[in-house]
Amino acid sequence: GGHVPALKTPKGTRDHSPAHVVLRDRLLAAVVACFKRHGAAAIDTPVLELREMLIGRYGEGAKLIYELQDQGGELLALRYDLTVPFARYLAMNKITNMKRYHVAKVYRRDNPATTRGRYREFYQCDFDIAGQFDPMIPDAECLKIVHEILSDLQLGDFLIRVRSDHRQILNGVFAVCGIPESKFITTCSTVDKLDKMPWEEVRSEMVGEKGLSPEAADRIGEYVQLHGGLDLIERLLQDPKLSQNKLAKEGLGDMKLLFEYLTLFGITEKVSFDLSLARGLDYYTGVIYEAVLLQQENDHVDEPVSVGSVAGGGRYDGLVGMFDPKGRKVPCVGVSIGIERIFSILEQRVAVSGEKVRTTETQVLVATPHKHLITARLKLISELWDAGIKAEMMYKKDPKLLKQLQYCEDTGIPLAAIVGEQELTDGVVKLRDVATREEVDIPREKLVDEIRRRLEP
Amino acid sequence: GGHVPALKTPKGTRDHSPAHVVLRDRLLAAVVACFKRHGAAAIDTPVLELREMLIGRYGEGAKLIYELQDQGGELLALRYDLTVPFARYLAMNKITNMKRYHVAKVYRRDNPATTRGRYREFYQCDFDIAGQFDPMIPDAECLKIVHEILSDLQLGDFLIRVRSDHRQILNGVFAVCGIPESKFITTCSTVDKLDKMPWEEVRSEMVGEKGLSPEAADRIGEYVQLHGGLDLIERLLQDPKLSQNKLAKEGLGDMKLLFEYLTLFGITEKVSFDLSLARGLDYYTGVIYEAVLLQQENDHVDEPVSVGSVAGGGRYDGLVGMFDPKGRKVPCVGVSIGIERIFSILEQRVAVSGEKVRTTETQVLVATPHKHLITARLKLISELWDAGIKAEMMYKKDPKLLKQLQYCEDTGIPLAAIVGEQELTDGVVKLRDVATREEVDIPREKLVDEIRRRLEP
Repeated sequence: GGHVPALKTPKGTRDHSPAHVVLRDRLLAAVVACFKRHGAAAIDTPVLELREMLIGRYGEGAKLIYELQDQGGELLALRYDLTVPFARYLAMNKITNMKRYHVAKVYRRDNPATTRGRYREFYQCDFDIAGQFDPMIPDAECLKIVHEILSDLQLGDFLIRVRSDHRQILNGVFAVCGIPESKFITTCSTVDKLDKMPWEEVRSEMVGEKGLSPEAADRIGEYVQLHGGLDLIERLLQDPKLSQNKLAKEGLGDMKLLFEYLTLFGITEKVSFDLSLARGLDYYTGVIYEAVLLQQENDHVDEPVSVGSVAGGGRYDGLVGMFDPKGRKVPCVGVSIGIERIFSILEQRVAVSGEKVRTTETQVLVATPHKHLITARLKLISELWDAGIKAEMMYKKDPKLLKQLQYCEDTGIPLAAIVGEQELTDGVVKLRDVATREEVDIPREKLVDEIRRRLEP
Repeated sequence: GGHVPALKTPKGTRDHSPAHVVLRDRLLAAVVACFKRHGAAAIDTPVLELREMLIGRYGEGAKLIYELQDQGGELLALRYDLTVPFARYLAMNKITNMKRYHVAKVYRRDNPATTRGRYREFYQCDFDIAGQFDPMIPDAECLKIVHEILSDLQLGDFLIRVRSDHRQILNGVFAVCGIPESKFITTCSTVDKLDKMPWEEVRSEMVGEKGLSPEAADRIGEYVQLHGGLDLIERLLQDPKLSQNKLAKEGLGDMKLLFEYLTLFGITEKVSFDLSLARGLDYYTGVIYEAVLLQQENDHVDEPVSVGSVAGGGRYDGLVGMFDPKGRKVPCVGVSIGIERIFSILEQRVAVSGEKVRTTETQVLVATPHKHLITARLKLISELWDAGIKAEMMYKKDPKLLKQLQYCEDTGIPLAAIVGEQELTDGVVKLRDVATREEVDIPREKLVDEIRRRLEP
């Protein structure tokens, strides 16, 4: 008796049905396989972190952090991403060199858009390289990983947009465009909006709200709308104005090195140097990137259109030092795969294809053709389990044979092992191929081998 | 700059290092393999549940529930177990028949005893069978699963203690011992303490606090201290007093059926019918069980890990109905494997054995013998990744060969693929077996096949 609660999950969260979990595990297995191929070790950190560990790391994101009630002096919060906990882990264990992956759920009180795969509880799949290394080698590997994963999953055409640190190229651009240094930060945040609004609007914000001259805005526009590959980087390095600026020259030099490495990896075709790329998190310090899926060609669109970010990451050389009592820095670069959006796409594809996803792996149903044989079923199924065969039986004492065979068809069980009085007397089991309905008597002691033989891939 | 937070994880939680995760994943894989062998499908539910979903389900446990701050009208809590979310899932989706497993973390603000594997964030591995079936068939399978898992993991000797519903056998015992029905519940809670205190103390609580006569207490003592197998159940069924009691007779009849099924499964040797077994949760309604590891006789470990219960479960026929607006019941029985305690044991065993747990799966280190060959390394490693080979390289432009080979030895990488100027000219790669130090030149186009051949199990 008593109060019956409203039957739902918290806002922005969901249950995952068996068919969901099977698809999700397939997807996660592909991602983890790639991380392992690149030599990463796994770590796991608690879902709960001390609140003060997260505060001040996420800029605007701070208001999306789930906080717990104070229940004994500790102020706790649910992790917002896997990057800050990784930095905390490195600092806490004084690790200066590590390649790790972490696949786990994170929590954000965002406005859910569940149809587009945006939830308040969602998986992140992170790969990061921590340590003091030569420039751009780990950074290039992160981009290779994004390329491998998106190719492996056959998600269609994609583009990885790359940009260097704001403080380098973009500030260099501002300098050569004659923007006073006091306006670099505010101009930068306007440029970041190029992701979401056309240049004309960004330009009028620069002139109207930020007080830039129309000429300065136009000069900026010439640079920030550029995107391309090694050619573009070389051209900018030759730019008479930009090449005079130390910061810009350094930043472009880094980009050139990165693209040379990406050329060796054979992936430059899908990577675009893009000055307008913006990423919201506060902790990035160097290369930043984001992968977007492009609309398919047969969608009758002249130019491919981005359908949303499915991976992102960058360099964050300052984060670990923020946790270290002595401020010791550990340079890091990483990538996070946006599994939920990819999952939405794969789920849709399965739905369209009509593929029936099996949610169990049962190989054999142990069945009986008539009454009073529960004992025979229990004995046989126990033998199969002990031999490592995946087996089920119906939990009724005397189920009808037809119902048992129907259960095989409904759940995709390929074989039925049938024992009746006659089979018990003869010391055999009738092995039925559910698809062909063919039945053969197998001597009991050879049953396990025969099942294994039939199920060989 | 700014405030550096205290470097720790919340009380009772911990990070899992790569070596931890490798061992844990091995353990979880064994448990999941057993669940799949028994035909279960996986589900996943959110870590967050509406607070009212959990309140009133856990008796004394209620005060251990983590509650979140009210941040927009929803009162949320972290899940306390996987059973209540499963019942909520069944009711919400109107599922009346399901065999599912769920491996995930749960949260309890318990007093941590981390040396004994008790944490505030810990894994549970649950297998449950929901549906209206013939008596004791699913219940027996749950016990078979516990037996299989504890045997597979080679944890040493163990015992599964089983008891039927309080309202049946134990209330029957009370009745034949002359206890008034008004005192059944309070007497029952005293009997539950037999798990933690000797009979003499339980007896004096019965007489002193609960007001039973010494004779009645002694009569109860004769029953509740009994434990055994089918023999004991048969003997109790013949007990002139107990056999006259309808409830006790029904309860013993159920136990008899259960033990007959367990005999067919060949596992009665490790199962004990035990009237004194107590389990703390409110929702159990039928068979209850708990598996304990038994101390090894020749246990020469310096600091033996103190372990108690490593698995537990039972029947809870009323829980789903509590969530259903119309009170529709779905009978359920399940088992939860206490993975953290088992993990402590396995971890200690690995430590004692001196086994070096590899935390990565890298098969090949791509190395160069002298300077200015970063290009060659990047090109070769890219080829290996694209062929699905697990490969690493050092992130320095010009690492010393000795350092590269040392890295292989430190991390257990079995092969090194070395390219120098000579190898580039000859179109070969020097493949080095790290263990034997043997080196062979392999034509570049045959390298992938040769690596695969060498690494075949």
